[in-house]
Amino acid sequence: MARPRQPLVDPLDAFCKDTKAYLAGPLGGPLSNLNFAAKDIFDVAGHVTGGGNPDWKATHPPAERNAWIVQTLVSAGATMVGKTHTDELTRGILGENAHYGTPINSKALGRVPGGSSSGSAAAVAGRLVDFALGSDTGGSVRIPASFCGLYGLRPTHGRIPLEGILMQAPSYDTIGWFTRDAETYAKVAETVFQSTIPDASPSRLIIAEDAFEEADEDVSEALMSVAEKLAAMAGSSTTLRLSPNGLTEWAVQQNVLQSVEAWDSVKDWIDQVNPRFSFWVSERYNLAISLTETQTSEATVLRDKVSARMDEVFAGGGFVCLPTAVVPAPLRGLPASAKKDVQGRLSRLTCIAGTTGRPQLSMPLAEVNGLPVGISIMGDHGSDEELIGFARRVE
Amino acid sequence: MARPRQPLVDPLDAFCKDTKAYLAGPLGGPLSNLNFAAKDIFDVAGHVTGGGNPDWKATHPPAERNAWIVQTLVSAGATMVGKTHTDELTRGILGENAHYGTPINSKALGRVPGGSSSGSAAAVAGRLVDFALGSDTGGSVRIPASFCGLYGLRPTHGRIPLEGILMQAPSYDTIGWFTRDAETYAKVAETVFQSTIPDASPSRLIIAEDAFEEADEDVSEALMSVAEKLAAMAGSSTTLRLSPNGLTEWAVQQNVLQSVEAWDSVKDWIDQVNPRFSFWVSERYNLAISLTETQTSEATVLRDKVSARMDEVFAGGGFVCLPTAVVPAPLRGLPASAKKDVQGRLSRLTCIAGTTGRPQLSMPLAEVNGLPVGISIMGDHGSDEELIGFARRVE
Repeated sequence: MARPRQPLVDPLDAFCKDTKAYLAGPLGGPLSNLNFAAKDIFDVAGHVTGGGNPDWKATHPPAERNAWIVQTLVSAGATMVGKTHTDELTRGILGENAHYGTPINSKALGRVPGGSSSGSAAAVAGRLVDFALGSDTGGSVRIPASFCGLYGLRPTHGRIPLEGILMQAPSYDTIGWFTRDAETYAKVAETVFQSTIPDASPSRLIIAEDAFEEADEDVSEALMSVAEKLAAMAGSSTTLRLSPNGLTEWAVQQNVLQSVEAWDSVKDWIDQVNPRFSFWVSERYNLAISLTETQTSEATVLRDKVSARMDEVFAGGGFVCLPTAVVPAPLRGLPASAKKDVQGRLSRLTCIAGTTGRPQLSMPLAEVNGLPVGISIMGDHGSDEELIGFARRVE
Repeated sequence: MARPRQPLVDPLDAFCKDTKAYLAGPLGGPLSNLNFAAKDIFDVAGHVTGGGNPDWKATHPPAERNAWIVQTLVSAGATMVGKTHTDELTRGILGENAHYGTPINSKALGRVPGGSSSGSAAAVAGRLVDFALGSDTGGSVRIPASFCGLYGLRPTHGRIPLEGILMQAPSYDTIGWFTRDAETYAKVAETVFQSTIPDASPSRLIIAEDAFEEADEDVSEALMSVAEKLAAMAGSSTTLRLSPNGLTEWAVQQNVLQSVEAWDSVKDWIDQVNPRFSFWVSERYNLAISLTETQTSEATVLRDKVSARMDEVFAGGGFVCLPTAVVPAPLRGLPASAKKDVQGRLSRLTCIAGTTGRPQLSMPLAEVNGLPVGISIMGDHGSDEELIGFARRVE
């Protein structure tokens, strides 16, 4: 069994320069041959969790304990070699941090890595580490996985303990990780979930027609070929429209409710510190400030409807198959208006699992013009292991 | 006649550290014995106008020409020794810049200097220069003058050419300056206005009862004694309520319309650059984004009503007398919610001249608990010289 590597040089600007967090995993554990990085929202004892915002970092003390998942992985033998960049307080989906820059997406040069787990995805894609921890509130594991050609799971909401992470919106926050292959994904999962990854295919694959329609035509075509192969491996397949009135309204309700929770998480700190944010991030917090009670209660009602509809979809078992992202990684440095447009489109697909707390795994099984695009499988609550098991079988 | 001083050491953090703008005025001009500083919104050829925001500075080229007023003052012999700190893009009234810090108010240690012309006011109060240029859109000359114990005029809107300054909200933007004495104020004014400052008192002093009621009780009392002395010097005096429905609604309409204009001035740049702002500044821009058409058209209607009412007040001639600020300089580092409260109260007095384009001069003629508080005289359009002349007479 190989010794874990020491911290690496970082040609990708994936790692936080000012945090030298390093935790050596013991030999002889199940993960002792793996090293990893953690998005700078995970506590490491003795280090300030920076959260991608210098004013957050300057106004918080060092963590007293390691985050639950960091400790679990290190106890299993994995070595943590550093903290990675994140969008400010995880409020972004493209991975461009106005304070710390944009990690390099080695699978799509000149393009964003995706966020907010941008540095973690870039570090894994660029082979700087074996796996890396991210978090997914509105898509922040799934989207960078798709943009960087990686495996990335948004787990069932509530399955992985969140102790010691910088929270954004509690009813949506989850922890995920990135790997380059499904085999490693499964290995880490067995430690995290303390369970075995099964070797089986779903009873049926439900191809979400309206989700495929949201994607750019070439993305949709490339992923539909993959979906057909997955369908052939499943027991049966069916095509279905998820949303009766369109996925846009599904995305809007999550944006409203997630914004409100995110604002609640930081409003007292913002009041005390008057921190600096990129304008786009401030704008997202200001959305919450400007919302009326009518808007939030309408969103709450709609959230319940979305949940009910997805319960119906999953009633017959199986996995839903959908594009992870509507586009390959966009160019770096787009104007905010263009970014906002992409973000809006991306959220129509990411909100489905986010709103209903279901697990969704993005797999790097297609390319469009040489750029990675991810295909997703979504399972019912608690099916995390089955999703990973199927991915390993497909691989 | 003394030679102008060279740039000084800056124990007050009033000056921009990274801009070495210096323009020597020729000997023999009317202002050759004076040196001055300019808020970092005034162009000086060869230097980038920073506007109090590092991303603004990083994304703009050096100015090609001096701002009209800078050139006018230097041509008259004054020496410009440096650029001074401002609130970000002039969007603040307290003078606390999240990027560059807070200039020291030597007249009220531990308290803010007032903004957005914070560095200019601090530099004059601390005797680093003889006078300093600021701008007043929503009170940014009058408020720091009051907090720092200085003379400061918001001139008649449109009287001083704005060529070469970073605009905020064109229908409110004006240029003013600070001095420690009325005599110097008059001397600079004669160059700026190319006219003579008369030696006369107003025909009557109109004491704005509702404006005095807005101020803290001790501020109001201290200033009322000064008002009575001014009234004695005027031909006659009268007490009047300016606003039929309260000054709060007057302030709100200016806040709405000024916000819309300010957003129009920078929205394309913000879209391109996604700049970093302190949260409070972003929030003010976001106000404009969230406004409905109904809100802006109601504000426009109210603006006309305020103008009509103030035309009525000035129909019989004379000056209106009012507190410049409702409080002495607040403590540095208050939470944003407390600042917002003060800002809201301050704007109920500053909006009167701002909304109607009238000149208002703040004079440092009172103290409360050892802290300066300014008394203001407001004249009809074009009465700038008369206001300064009266101030010189009072002094």
